[in-house]
Amino acid sequence: MAFALRSLLHRKRRQPGVDEFDLIKRLLAPLAAAVPGTFNLTNDAAVVSPPAGQDLVVTKDMVAAGVHFLPDDPPDLIARKLLRVNLSDLAAMGASPLGYLVGAAFREPLDESWLIRFVDGLRADQETFGLGLLGGDTITVGQAPLVLSLTALGAVPQGQALTRSGAVPGDVLAVSGTLGDGALGLRCLRDEVAVDTDDHEFLVDRYRLPRPRLELGVKLRGRATAVLDISDGLIADAGHLSEESNVAIRIDAERLPLSGAAQRLVGRDPKHLDDVLTGGDDYELLFTIGEADLAALTETDAGVSAIGVVEAGSGVRVVDGMGVDITPTRTGWRHGEFTR
Amino acid sequence: MAFALRSLLHRKRRQPGVDEFDLIKRLLAPLAAAVPGTFNLTNDAAVVSPPAGQDLVVTKDMVAAGVHFLPDDPPDLIARKLLRVNLSDLAAMGASPLGYLVGAAFREPLDESWLIRFVDGLRADQETFGLGLLGGDTITVGQAPLVLSLTALGAVPQGQALTRSGAVPGDVLAVSGTLGDGALGLRCLRDEVAVDTDDHEFLVDRYRLPRPRLELGVKLRGRATAVLDISDGLIADAGHLSEESNVAIRIDAERLPLSGAAQRLVGRDPKHLDDVLTGGDDYELLFTIGEADLAALTETDAGVSAIGVVEAGSGVRVVDGMGVDITPTRTGWRHGEFTR
Repeated sequence: MAFALRSLLHRKRRQPGVDEFDLIKRLLAPLAAAVPGTFNLTNDAAVVSPPAGQDLVVTKDMVAAGVHFLPDDPPDLIARKLLRVNLSDLAAMGASPLGYLVGAAFREPLDESWLIRFVDGLRADQETFGLGLLGGDTITVGQAPLVLSLTALGAVPQGQALTRSGAVPGDVLAVSGTLGDGALGLRCLRDEVAVDTDDHEFLVDRYRLPRPRLELGVKLRGRATAVLDISDGLIADAGHLSEESNVAIRIDAERLPLSGAAQRLVGRDPKHLDDVLTGGDDYELLFTIGEADLAALTETDAGVSAIGVVEAGSGVRVVDGMGVDITPTRTGWRHGEFTR
Repeated sequence: MAFALRSLLHRKRRQPGVDEFDLIKRLLAPLAAAVPGTFNLTNDAAVVSPPAGQDLVVTKDMVAAGVHFLPDDPPDLIARKLLRVNLSDLAAMGASPLGYLVGAAFREPLDESWLIRFVDGLRADQETFGLGLLGGDTITVGQAPLVLSLTALGAVPQGQALTRSGAVPGDVLAVSGTLGDGALGLRCLRDEVAVDTDDHEFLVDRYRLPRPRLELGVKLRGRATAVLDISDGLIADAGHLSEESNVAIRIDAERLPLSGAAQRLVGRDPKHLDDVLTGGDDYELLFTIGEADLAALTETDAGVSAIGVVEAGSGVRVVDGMGVDITPTRTGWRHGEFTR
């Protein structure tokens, strides 16, 4: 762990007075100040004491400018999405967040105002989700695009981590929140759809700022039989549940929970139903659960909807209200890329 | 956690049959096969059960092609150095390795043979150091340089993690192994020094393949008063111990442990003593310890040498055999960069 700007092969001499190492340390150290075992980010590594009787859950995601976000996206939102996509992975395991490490490969020269806003975003979400910075590393890479990496640590009572492999025929397929908003928000940013200002703001916000369903994840412990968070798209991720559990999954298209903005877009042009079915970046929890256990979740604020059933067999199909198979031929979305 | 090649903004259609997601998963999954809680890398996150009564130690380092390694360096050695610099941080905390997560931002198109050799390097060092892959993420970033990130997890008995802050006047300053080989190895690779073939191979190997002093770190628990691993250079890192412990440190130049190759270079041109004092990439442990506790370490195979003393005051000075201050004016080395 080293919050230094390290450059092994370059030997450029720095301008006197511009000490980027100190800048980064000064900006990031307050994010770790309240976290025991981080030594104000001056040590080789951080010490974390997981709560007794808990397993540790670890996950890591990487993003790059021009690939996962636009270079001129607001830095605080880039930071918050980076943290939230990792927290969404913790939610899918039923884990509560403990802390995180962040890595960044910055362009030169360092943009201090960008960095300040990036750190502001991390600080805001640390407070929202109750976790702190444990450490990390920053480097500079000349003129290459910004690459960010984040590792999140969480804790879950021993043996209670949720997996993708326990779905059984007869389970209900359920999902939190609404579907397709992230993909439609990206279409808004790309000027591929025309919507009114309110819908534009709503959808873009949903794309830029996922809501990790951490409270729901905790409630699913001991209830859900299989869980994941939707990042590749509903059908692709339902496919992962189907494969890992060795079951078939039927999705009822008319039960899909849509936001008002998404309803208006799909109503105007039914082809946007494909965005709902295959669009990535929802970061809602998709899970299988027995009828009785589902009933216990109705109080959750993440708005759980039953959208299908688990059956014997394999594969995922989408049916309309008449039971007719309407599964799109293009079912895979790899974060914006329709690859199948 | 997602071993997918994700591309949110690009929408290039892939060639049929070229499924990079499957390629990476196929190559990396065996590295996690023996690790409980990794679900064959198919889950959202990994579950780790730290041994009872142990604290967790986490550290993260990032490296980039053209900055920390050359684009045509052997991929297996890039992988092993990436892992080892993180294990060196664990060693400095007195921790034993539990596992690691790896992140990579690859150029397109993916070079399968490069990847195979990179994974070979990880596999070799997993076996050497007894840890396994817990997860990670891979992305592609067009033509940008390769950026790699690694997070290592270790465990240490509760409350026994080593820090940088406990040195007291009267302690001995000690170091493992030999000093300066990494910096001189980099000079060899840059054709800045002429040495015979054996010395070239030895020094380049020392630069490319650090030896994380994990066994020594474990032995230092409860004995050393302050510890770190030398990555920024002996004087700079002694400065970190001095600052965090609020003590002065005197280094005796004539007691510095040099390899035969380094001795020959310094003998030929005394200016290379500066490489020994300020060169980065040694990854040896630098620590302070009482005389009696030091005596207990003589059996260690990492070759511990006493090189100085801790005194009241502040700052670091280097003295020759006559006690004359010979501290170089240029004391900082930030991974190859002579910054001041």
